[in-house]
Amino acid sequence: MGPGPSNPYPEVTAALCRPMLGHLDPEFLALLDETCERLRLVFRTGNALTFPVSATGSGGMEAAFVNFVRPGDPVVIGVNGLFGARMCETARRLGAEVVTVEAPWGEPLDPEAVLAAHDSPAIIALVHAETSTGVRNEIGPIGNGKRDALLLVDMVTSLGGIDVDVDGWNVDVAYSGSQKCLGVPPGLAPITVGDRARQRLVERPSSWYFDLGLLSRYVDAREGRAYHHTAPVSMIYALHAGLGTLLEEGLESSWARHQSCGRLLQDGLVSMGMRLVAPVEHRLPQLTTVWVPDDLVPGCEEADVRRMLLDDFGIEIGAGVGPLAGKAWRIGCMGHTARRRNVTLLLAALGEVLSR
Amino acid sequence: MGPGPSNPYPEVTAALCRPMLGHLDPEFLALLDETCERLRLVFRTGNALTFPVSATGSGGMEAAFVNFVRPGDPVVIGVNGLFGARMCETARRLGAEVVTVEAPWGEPLDPEAVLAAHDSPAIIALVHAETSTGVRNEIGPIGNGKRDALLLVDMVTSLGGIDVDVDGWNVDVAYSGSQKCLGVPPGLAPITVGDRARQRLVERPSSWYFDLGLLSRYVDAREGRAYHHTAPVSMIYALHAGLGTLLEEGLESSWARHQSCGRLLQDGLVSMGMRLVAPVEHRLPQLTTVWVPDDLVPGCEEADVRRMLLDDFGIEIGAGVGPLAGKAWRIGCMGHTARRRNVTLLLAALGEVLSR
Repeated sequence: MGPGPSNPYPEVTAALCRPMLGHLDPEFLALLDETCERLRLVFRTGNALTFPVSATGSGGMEAAFVNFVRPGDPVVIGVNGLFGARMCETARRLGAEVVTVEAPWGEPLDPEAVLAAHDSPAIIALVHAETSTGVRNEIGPIGNGKRDALLLVDMVTSLGGIDVDVDGWNVDVAYSGSQKCLGVPPGLAPITVGDRARQRLVERPSSWYFDLGLLSRYVDAREGRAYHHTAPVSMIYALHAGLGTLLEEGLESSWARHQSCGRLLQDGLVSMGMRLVAPVEHRLPQLTTVWVPDDLVPGCEEADVRRMLLDDFGIEIGAGVGPLAGKAWRIGCMGHTARRRNVTLLLAALGEVLSR
Repeated sequence: MGPGPSNPYPEVTAALCRPMLGHLDPEFLALLDETCERLRLVFRTGNALTFPVSATGSGGMEAAFVNFVRPGDPVVIGVNGLFGARMCETARRLGAEVVTVEAPWGEPLDPEAVLAAHDSPAIIALVHAETSTGVRNEIGPIGNGKRDALLLVDMVTSLGGIDVDVDGWNVDVAYSGSQKCLGVPPGLAPITVGDRARQRLVERPSSWYFDLGLLSRYVDAREGRAYHHTAPVSMIYALHAGLGTLLEEGLESSWARHQSCGRLLQDGLVSMGMRLVAPVEHRLPQLTTVWVPDDLVPGCEEADVRRMLLDDFGIEIGAGVGPLAGKAWRIGCMGHTARRRNVTLLLAALGEVLSR
C-alpha cells in the first residue's frame, strides 16, 4: 500500500509466465496490437500512436519530452510536487526555456495561471495525479485554453484509477506507468500521442531508444514491422492481461472501486484523529497523503511506524518526499490493492502500531 | 531459436511470479544487491557500478553512450554489422565526431585498424558478438592498446554464452541484454562501469532516465538509496533467478554447453550441404548465420521456410538483416534454448521442410 508498485492482478501474474514468443512472431504482434487497442480504451482516445514504451513511467516522461522539445522552446510546466519538478529538469536538459507555474505541495495548480504563464508556449506540461502529494490537477480547462501549444500530461498514477479522458480534454501527449492503477508490475510506460503532436515530432531526437518516429514503425502495423529493439515480451503479456482485467470490470467500476476504497481509508484515518494533506475536492482516492501524528510516542520516528507495519503485518506504506519528508505518509490504494479488506487491515494495523 | 529472445530458464519463469515488493523494500534491495553481485561474477569484474538498466539491451547502449559522449568528442566505432552501425547513429545524435572502422558483414574487425583509426579518441566502441552476422570481434587487443580512450563494448549476445572478461580485457563500459544467453525475458540491460569511466561521467547528460550519476545513488547501497525511478521489480526477480541458474551451472560449463550446441548445429547444417556465413575462427556458437540454399523449390521464398518451421514445429528462426536480408538465416542457441534436443529437432525439421 505504498505509492506504487501496487499488487498485480492475479491474471497478470499468470500472464507473466506465458511461454516466450519472439518480438516479430505473428502471435505476439497480434497480442501487442490488442494491448494497444486496450490502452486506447483506457486512455479514452482514438490516437493511432498508443503503445507501451519499454521503460518505467519515468521513461515515458522522457519519451514525451525528448520527442517534442527543441532547444530554446518555451515550455510551461505546472509544479506542485516532485513529478512536476522532475518534468522541469527533463525539459531543461533538452534545452527548453522552462516557465514554471507553482502551487504549494499539497495544493492543486490553478489552470488559469498555467494558461497565463506565457503568450505562446510550445508545450504546456503538468501532472494529472501528483504521487508525491495525493493531489489531482484539473486537465480539461487547460486543454480547452491551450491554443497552439501541445498539452503533455503525466497520467502515471491516474490511469485506471480516476476519470481520464485524453481526447475529451484535448491532451496531445500522455504517458503512464504499468505499476499503479493498472495493477501490473513496474517496467512499462503506456504512452499516447495525438496526430497534432505527431506532426511536430522532433526529427532525430537526441535519444535513439525513445525515438517515437522509429518506434512507430514497429508498433503501428500500418507502418510495417521494422525492428527497433526487442520488445519486453513478458511484461507486455502482463500489461495485456491487466488491461483485460480492468476492462472486464469496466473503467467506471474501477474508478468507483478506487473511489470507495480511498474514501474508506481517508474517513478511517480522520476518525482516528489524523489530518489529511490534500484538500477534499482535489484529493486522490488512490493515493492518500496523511500528516504523521505529532503525538508519536517519544523515541518513535515515523520511519519506525512504517517499519512496524512492514515487519509485523507485511504492509508497505510510503514515506513523504520533498517538503513532506518526515512529516507525511503516502498510502496507496491502487489496482488490485484497492480492496476493502486491505483498507480495513491497514487501518486496524496502523491503529495497533500507533497505540503501542 | 531466433536471435533472441531465447526461452527463459524454468527458474526464471517461476521467479516472475513472486509476490510484488516495493522498490525501497529492504527485502527487494537485498535481492537487487545480490543481482548486482551476480552480474559482477558473470561480467567478470569488480566494478562497483554494475546493475540492470531498466530498459532493453538497446537502452543499455543508450545509457553507455549518453553518459560519456560530449559534443565534438572523437569516437571510434567498429562497424561490421547492424549493431555497430546503430552505435554510430546513437553517438552522432549526441554530437560525437564518429570515426568508423569497417569490416564486411560476416567478417571480424581488425583490432589494429580500430586502434589506428584516430590519434586520441575519447571513446572506442565496438560489438563483441554481432547478432546480425554471428561474428565474434576480439576485445582484448583493443583493451591493451586503447591508451587514454574509454573502451565501450556491446556484450548483448555474448554475456553468459562465450568467454567475457571485462576486467581482464580492460573494458571500461559494457552492457548486455537479459534475453540472450542469460535466459531471461527481454526488458533489462545489465551494465558495468569501471572507476576510470566513472570519473568521466557527463554531468547532467541529456537523458534523465539513463543518468548513471543519479542511478548510482539508488543502486549503490554505499551512496544511499535515493529514489530515481520505480525499479522493474518482477523483471529483476527474473534476472536474479537467471543469473543464479547460470552461476550454479558455472560460467565455463555454460560456455561449453553453448559451444557444443553451436558446433552440433553448425556441423549439422554443413552436412546438409549448407554454407555458414561467419569464418570458423570468429564464429559464434550461440548465433549461427547460414546462407539460404540457392536451390529452394521454385516459388518457395526463404520466409516461407521460416513460416513452415514456425507453423508446423513451433520453431522460430530469424531472418537476415541488412545486406544479409533474404540471403541468410540467423539461428539462436542461447540460454535455456541451448540444448541438444532443440538442435536435433531444428535440424530434422529444417531438413523436412527443405525437402517438401
